[in-house]
Amino acid sequence: ENIGRLIIKCPDQPGIVAAVTTFLKEHNANIVELSQYSMNPEGGTFFTRIEFECPDLKKQGEKLEQEFQEVADQFSMEWKFNYVSDLKRAAIFVSKEPHCLLELLWEWQSGDLMMDIALVISNHEDARATVEALQIPYYYIPANKDIRKEVEEKQLKLLQVFEIDLIILARYMQILTPDFVAAHPNRIINIHHSFLPAFIGARPYERAYDRGVKLIGATSHYVTNDLDEGPIIEQDIGRVNHRDSAEDMKKAGRTIERRVLARAVKWHIEDRVIVHGNKTVVF
Amino acid sequence: ENIGRLIIKCPDQPGIVAAVTTFLKEHNANIVELSQYSMNPEGGTFFTRIEFECPDLKKQGEKLEQEFQEVADQFSMEWKFNYVSDLKRAAIFVSKEPHCLLELLWEWQSGDLMMDIALVISNHEDARATVEALQIPYYYIPANKDIRKEVEEKQLKLLQVFEIDLIILARYMQILTPDFVAAHPNRIINIHHSFLPAFIGARPYERAYDRGVKLIGATSHYVTNDLDEGPIIEQDIGRVNHRDSAEDMKKAGRTIERRVLARAVKWHIEDRVIVHGNKTVVF
Amino acid sequence: ENIGRLIIKCPDQPGIVAAVTTFLKEHNANIVELSQYSMNPEGGTFFTRIEFECPDLKKQGEKLEQEFQEVADQFSMEWKFNYVSDLKRAAIFVSKEPHCLLELLWEWQSGDLMMDIALVISNHEDARATVEALQIPYYYIPANKDIRKEVEEKQLKLLQVFEIDLIILARYMQILTPDFVAAHPNRIINIHHSFLPAFIGARPYERAYDRGVKLIGATSHYVTNDLDEGPIIEQDIGRVNHRDSAEDMKKAGRTIERRVLARAVKWHIEDRVIVHGNKTVVF
Amino acid sequence: ENIGRLIIKCPDQPGIVAAVTTFLKEHNANIVELSQYSMNPEGGTFFTRIEFECPDLKKQGEKLEQEFQEVADQFSMEWKFNYVSDLKRAAIFVSKEPHCLLELLWEWQSGDLMMDIALVISNHEDARATVEALQIPYYYIPANKDIRKEVEEKQLKLLQVFEIDLIILARYMQILTPDFVAAHPNRIINIHHSFLPAFIGARPYERAYDRGVKLIGATSHYVTNDLDEGPIIEQDIGRVNHRDSAEDMKKAGRTIERRVLARAVKWHIEDRVIVHGNKTVVF
Repeated sequence: ENIGRLIIKCPDQPGIVAAVTTFLKEHNANIVELSQYSMNPEGGTFFTRIEFECPDLKKQGEKLEQEFQEVADQFSMEWKFNYVSDLKRAAIFVSKEPHCLLELLWEWQSGDLMMDIALVISNHEDARATVEALQIPYYYIPANKDIRKEVEEKQLKLLQVFEIDLIILARYMQILTPDFVAAHPNRIINIHHSFLPAFIGARPYERAYDRGVKLIGATSHYVTNDLDEGPIIEQDIGRVNHRDSAEDMKKAGRTIERRVLARAVKWHIEDRVIVHGNKTVVF
Repeated sequence: ENIGRLIIKCPDQPGIVAAVTTFLKEHNANIVELSQYSMNPEGGTFFTRIEFECPDLKKQGEKLEQEFQEVADQFSMEWKFNYVSDLKRAAIFVSKEPHCLLELLWEWQSGDLMMDIALVISNHEDARATVEALQIPYYYIPANKDIRKEVEEKQLKLLQVFEIDLIILARYMQILTPDFVAAHPNRIINIHHSFLPAFIGARPYERAYDRGVKLIGATSHYVTNDLDEGPIIEQDIGRVNHRDSAEDMKKAGRTIERRVLARAVKWHIEDRVIVHGNKTVVF
Repeated sequence: ENIGRLIIKCPDQPGIVAAVTTFLKEHNANIVELSQYSMNPEGGTFFTRIEFECPDLKKQGEKLEQEFQEVADQFSMEWKFNYVSDLKRAAIFVSKEPHCLLELLWEWQSGDLMMDIALVISNHEDARATVEALQIPYYYIPANKDIRKEVEEKQLKLLQVFEIDLIILARYMQILTPDFVAAHPNRIINIHHSFLPAFIGARPYERAYDRGVKLIGATSHYVTNDLDEGPIIEQDIGRVNHRDSAEDMKKAGRTIERRVLARAVKWHIEDRVIVHGNKTVVF
Repeated sequence: ENIGRLIIKCPDQPGIVAAVTTFLKEHNANIVELSQYSMNPEGGTFFTRIEFECPDLKKQGEKLEQEFQEVADQFSMEWKFNYVSDLKRAAIFVSKEPHCLLELLWEWQSGDLMMDIALVISNHEDARATVEALQIPYYYIPANKDIRKEVEEKQLKLLQVFEIDLIILARYMQILTPDFVAAHPNRIINIHHSFLPAFIGARPYERAYDRGVKLIGATSHYVTNDLDEGPIIEQDIGRVNHRDSAEDMKKAGRTIERRVLARAVKWHIEDRVIVHGNKTVVF
């Protein structure tokens, strides 16, 4: 395809959109979708995501990027061109509960998640058959907190070999070390089984049950070194009532987790999510 | 009307429903609606709410209650007969923001909240005209944390004079003392402007904004002496996104707060809410 | 298990609940959950669903049913005892789109749909591998409107051989004949891909797109001989906007269809759905 | 204020955004928010809404519009500059049920609906006190289908005298004539009490009840001469169940109608709604 995306973050000032869109026009790039957000037009941060079509984009891309540098410098931009034909390569991490993994595999099979699922890594063998049936490599790496370092070394090696852009924690129940996280800034997406910041940490459904809430939820966020404190991409909730046990909440929660994670991953691979501080702009 | 409600909480054991419904039948009471919940059929707590119709209920009520004592004793019941014609008498407390008060007045005028609004108490004069236009007494009692005791003495006196059954904190922004709360167990309904247990305490919308959540919410709960920790009656949420400032969230939140509080009050006055520990059964 | 369910529909009159619960108590059946609804306490129809536990239920069941006849006669009841250990036997019909089938298989594998999936019947071969991998027989019966009669004969024979209680049309895109439908009253559950009664019939997403709706939906209902007019069990919706093409709506709709059908099937097999006229009571 | 909005609709082609944003930049207008949508980048219709800030806009406006004509001609644009300081002038029409009117008045009082409510017209006297208490003129014009023409003449005269830009039918239960509608294209906003296209026409809640739906809804749309067929601006729904009578649905529906109409009006006065054929783009 000849579709590209230009993502920009910079200090706001007059003339940014004009400069960028004029640049694109002069390079024969027709805008398909333009989203823009300014935190504060008088002195805040400016964000844009522009999807464009450009004949012969594969060849033109490098030239485009070189020549854009001038515009970028003028406005002190952080910027990135992405090409729709360069699919992101994802690694999915999973533990015992398969529902989030299955949802991703399914959406991917239906053609609704435009990425390569390069491999699945798990500390359990449970999902091997399902994953391998789709010709996706499955790596079983037993894990616990005492061997965290060795485990992550194996994982990092695989991520390198498979040239991974994106790590999806699809209910992977091991904590990642600060080094691992630091090596993948805004590239690890987690699903937490509560509407954060409620019920940070372990056993959220049990604690939701104990508190007697009338809503349960799930939150997909980028992983940072503060547990469950990273930038939120998407959240959703469902109703529960006094008849629901903690076990019922877990079951009902699965459906919520599945759709929240799938949406977050979809938006990420479409370059719709821009992280700013501890928040996200989702175009 | 000849409609009554029987609310029961007791240790579960076989035969409760049979005993109660047989009693009602023998007293010519026809069941209109029966809700039942057992936390655990083998040894938990049993709850029921039975709405019934009984000819000449006003006269029969006392006899019914006397004779029910025998059934109640047999099963160690906590129980209560309520009569729909005895409207609960509510006091609404409000500070500056009127939206929750207005919603309650409105639903009440439409005939959708079957209670008497006996008076409104506020630490501001703002809502006086609106309230008095409906022939509801309005008491202005300035308040701050230094004069809490004197303020509550005045309030308690009014509650006594007006024979109040129910206190509704419709965005009343003063903290109540433990004595005040203890005097009204499960009779003070508050609306908190977050989906608890997220954002307990002050300035929840500002903190929601800072955290970058994608959902905001509101929670209605009975007040206990643990701030925002009382039994939850109802919660609901709305979507926000990166374009919403804390101020936008406050505005959007008003609509959620209004409907959550109105539902909680409605369920309370229909005797649908039974408190058990720190949770509610809502029939 | 020793869990049974008693489902009753009869003209309302005083004493029904007392009579039934007294009967259960006398037969050592302890009530686990009781739901009751009366369309109009003075002269309408009464519905109840009682879940109970009874020692040695397998053996006692027949006796229970015989002796209940007396109570039933007294109140002119339509009634039925179901035993949780007698799983319903379902046939799933599917055409090309697999998402609803997959959702059912998944929920079933997770232990959330307590039924036997006895077989899958399809007019396409697409889903064979998925279904057979779960040791469920898969029957490919090509179908079109010219051979409807022969097709249904084959299907009916399979339903008989497999002793089917429930037919689930999981996006089965062939119309059933009146004879077929009449043979399975309130036993065929369909998922229609719109919020009925909007967009009855073919191509609802395209028509939703053309109309410019801001919500799309799905409806699960029992099949009758009036197309898409049968008793509704469950409905749900999702938001769309001007950026969504008909194709986008189809994709978004799949998620809605999946959860609506799964809920309807769950409620049906738990005996929570009682049909009355062209409506359902869902306990 | 110095905030303006530029709304454009034109055939899509490369270079539109560049031309428009360059024009704005050259006129010292800084973009606050830019939304853009292209039905089909290769040959469809292009829509944009640009909110900008420009020093001394009141004085500059006319010059801006004159000079923009050149850009507009180049791309065959339909276009319009609106100035935030020029509040739209609305007339609210209401019949007996006041809830939608009250919601609008309330949001307006809270500062959340930036428009002038120039007058209220009703075929009943019920709302007079409420409206006049806010210093808004109230005109009682009795109406029925036999005197439709005379009624509308009176109404049209008032609309002219008060220089009305927007007519809001806040549960106004009289049908408007084709002439009246034709005179106000895309300027009459109605609230219909169902999720269209379900239950077009009269008595939607009764029909929803009869059909046994599990969701009720409301739809706000521009009025055209096809009853309830105009471009939809916003829709929302709420859950109902078998216990809800048609009367209960009406009550529950009021809350939905209120928020759907308020949102639609808010979006309209912020120039976020662009009509295209029988659909809307809502930015």
